[in-house]
Amino acid sequence: MTHFLSTADLSSDELRELISTAMAFKAERRVSNELSGRSVALVFLNPSLRTRASMQIAVFELGGNPVLIEPGSTSWSIEYIDNAVMDGDRTEHIAEFVRVLSRYVSAIGVRTFATLKDWELERTDPVLKAFSKYSSVPVINLESAMHHPCQAMADMQTIRERFGEVKKKVLLTWAWHPKALPMAVPNSFALAAAQMGHDLTIAYPEGYDLDPELMMQVRSSAELAGGSVQVVNDSAIGFDDADVVYAKSWAPPSFYGSEAAVPDPQLRDRWIVNSEKMARTANGIFMHCLPVRRNVIVTDAVLDSASSVVIDEAENRLHIQKAILAALVK
Amino acid sequence: MTHFLSTADLSSDELRELISTAMAFKAERRVSNELSGRSVALVFLNPSLRTRASMQIAVFELGGNPVLIEPGSTSWSIEYIDNAVMDGDRTEHIAEFVRVLSRYVSAIGVRTFATLKDWELERTDPVLKAFSKYSSVPVINLESAMHHPCQAMADMQTIRERFGEVKKKVLLTWAWHPKALPMAVPNSFALAAAQMGHDLTIAYPEGYDLDPELMMQVRSSAELAGGSVQVVNDSAIGFDDADVVYAKSWAPPSFYGSEAAVPDPQLRDRWIVNSEKMARTANGIFMHCLPVRRNVIVTDAVLDSASSVVIDEAENRLHIQKAILAALVK
Amino acid sequence: MTHFLSTADLSSDELRELISTAMAFKAERRVSNELSGRSVALVFLNPSLRTRASMQIAVFELGGNPVLIEPGSTSWSIEYIDNAVMDGDRTEHIAEFVRVLSRYVSAIGVRTFATLKDWELERTDPVLKAFSKYSSVPVINLESAMHHPCQAMADMQTIRERFGEVKKKVLLTWAWHPKALPMAVPNSFALAAAQMGHDLTIAYPEGYDLDPELMMQVRSSAELAGGSVQVVNDSAIGFDDADVVYAKSWAPPSFYGSEAAVPDPQLRDRWIVNSEKMARTANGIFMHCLPVRRNVIVTDAVLDSASSVVIDEAENRLHIQKAILAALVK
Repeated sequence: MTHFLSTADLSSDELRELISTAMAFKAERRVSNELSGRSVALVFLNPSLRTRASMQIAVFELGGNPVLIEPGSTSWSIEYIDNAVMDGDRTEHIAEFVRVLSRYVSAIGVRTFATLKDWELERTDPVLKAFSKYSSVPVINLESAMHHPCQAMADMQTIRERFGEVKKKVLLTWAWHPKALPMAVPNSFALAAAQMGHDLTIAYPEGYDLDPELMMQVRSSAELAGGSVQVVNDSAIGFDDADVVYAKSWAPPSFYGSEAAVPDPQLRDRWIVNSEKMARTANGIFMHCLPVRRNVIVTDAVLDSASSVVIDEAENRLHIQKAILAALVK
Repeated sequence: MTHFLSTADLSSDELRELISTAMAFKAERRVSNELSGRSVALVFLNPSLRTRASMQIAVFELGGNPVLIEPGSTSWSIEYIDNAVMDGDRTEHIAEFVRVLSRYVSAIGVRTFATLKDWELERTDPVLKAFSKYSSVPVINLESAMHHPCQAMADMQTIRERFGEVKKKVLLTWAWHPKALPMAVPNSFALAAAQMGHDLTIAYPEGYDLDPELMMQVRSSAELAGGSVQVVNDSAIGFDDADVVYAKSWAPPSFYGSEAAVPDPQLRDRWIVNSEKMARTANGIFMHCLPVRRNVIVTDAVLDSASSVVIDEAENRLHIQKAILAALVK
Repeated sequence: MTHFLSTADLSSDELRELISTAMAFKAERRVSNELSGRSVALVFLNPSLRTRASMQIAVFELGGNPVLIEPGSTSWSIEYIDNAVMDGDRTEHIAEFVRVLSRYVSAIGVRTFATLKDWELERTDPVLKAFSKYSSVPVINLESAMHHPCQAMADMQTIRERFGEVKKKVLLTWAWHPKALPMAVPNSFALAAAQMGHDLTIAYPEGYDLDPELMMQVRSSAELAGGSVQVVNDSAIGFDDADVVYAKSWAPPSFYGSEAAVPDPQLRDRWIVNSEKMARTANGIFMHCLPVRRNVIVTDAVLDSASSVVIDEAENRLHIQKAILAALVK
């Protein structure tokens, strides 16, 4: 593959092979030489714990040298607009930024969140696209406005570790959060779950729909893989007989604007994941990408229970990213 | 040892053995393989020069990969309170933060200063304790609210380099500073000096007492090791015949509050370490953990004299931390 | 060489040899062992993309361990004044800062821009000088108030790659910028071009003169190397028959002050590098150190044309810095 921007870049079989490689890396953790003598740029336009730590370690364990770059902080601020007259605050155009990095490194990882200001712009993932346009080396998406494929792949690995390669009933359920959040994680989780052929239910309050175009992609992926997708506007019934419960807050397209809208506080108690809801599942596992706000998204009781696999998901970020990097630089 | 949180975690003999290892590392500086292929997280909640640089190099020289993490800056802000309802500013609970890191790395170093707001809370070292509670890998204290054991061990190594393994007359003397400072350094120095069996004098103005519980620990350690402890409220007599003068500013428990109290400026001139005072010593050495405010804590004349060993202390941070890390991951 | 502070530290032949080494490193990019097992401190008092990334990779590719230090951010703020009474905001004196680092590492790189506040002070490069004064290991200048020799050497390498080792007609042309910029880049480019024996034209509006003392050094270097230097206050004629066009904005000494002066906006359109001007050259190449403000310093048409070598210059930073580091630690 040229770049790794979304799981849609790969077939279901290719995704399964990446997971197999990740599981092999996990089974025997050691330094290998896929990136021996080579450097990888990790460009962070946003904060990060798991991604930052796990990518540095992934590069190191493949024999390489991680190089962290923080535009606007330790590095220059970046202009993304083509043909811009750069007489304002931004000091470097992405055309130079990325072409220079391409000379130094063998791959570029980039994290660039949605700002929730302009839906029509952000839905096109303009920053990530510019990286892939200007880079002559593979680009790996470490969470963009619309996708977080490394997270989704770590999630699919975690599900496979628990249940094997069989179709499961998977619930992706919205949760309240004190401020509007991007939809990269639910987008990528839904897409990857569909590509894996699971029976996916997406539950959210009325008015919190995901991107219609993304949903079309999810539905067609499910169909191709022999799975199914249903949407419910109910905070409880999706839990019935679920094998997997994946909680995440997100803001719908209508929330985007100069001042992003705030989720309705009245939804908070109804949409929290608690033991009562988990009791409705088929002894299901609880998943979240972290960081998670305890007792807001999910209760301590669920998060600290034996069915919580959030730490495994986070660990698997390391292994799947090693698999993705190794495939990208092959 | 499981963790390295305070020198009190180890016996005097174990501390001496760490110093011997550090001196061997110093005698032949090269890359070894105690951490080969492994990563170490270095979590900095506060600024650092020596600790940050020397820990990165220590990990590298043991064959490992240092991973810097800066919560609240490049990483997420951390919630420490159990059972918190996380609907405020803090985005990640330490329970997840540390458990995730434990999956990625072979050891975790953490720096977390006292905020000087709530003595009853801070004296329990809550952040450091939470790290050691949730971590499944060794935790190394890179300065907490109450302890700075790596510094104290580098100090003990420096004294041993100068004088051999014999009992010396050691003065720990308070100094004025434009703002209130934590007591981690004097606490750990006093404790380690007592554990090494030195004759320790602690000098400070009335009202600047150290923690009574810490002082009990220092006294009992001294007794066990055949040394002694005395406290004086005089800025000069402690220098008489001293072999070692260790200067440090600190704020006593009574200074902690929503707005930390400020040291009395009238104490400044009386408590500075100058050549006149050093002339009273037995050709004693001058020590400070750095950074040091010149001509406030100590005069240029003393700091730049042949008896100043501050740069040696700083260098020894590297060697003793290699010894501690090697022991922790054995 | 002891330190690498300015190209004036070396003879023309020594500079040529560094470029030869850099070209060899570029021809076969791999990890070597000049810095094996050793660490290099990279001290950044200012933002950086190219320097930060390329230096980290240079150290890695020489087998070493780069250690980034950011005083005032992740590290302490630094006092530079001798005999200072440090009762203000600055927490560590450079005397300790550098002497401690010297114990940890085999070389120190430092970036410290002009603040454009006090010309008489800044023209002496006080921070860089203090580093070289207190360091017991080689210091490499990663851009100081007055010099950016790594950039200039990468530029000379780029010119040699294009034209071989022959005398060329080189234009250094001022450009407008929304705020006052330091003169390190034009100073070092002019000096290095003179040392390489090129025929150098420096073009800038009246009142934007470079430092007279630097200009004397440039003129005597040109004479020694068999080249020439001329200054014109015209935005176009310097382009006639030029082989190399190097654009850069800078503020003259008279702009320095408590509030730096701003370049005259009326100069903007006249001094931009555009296709019309480039058509006057002898099929010349366009150079800039980056970051560059598109359509302010240079038009998109020129920057994106085949004659633009800005990405090559940036790449060569890596290779020449490897050559410089290898020579410094030999």
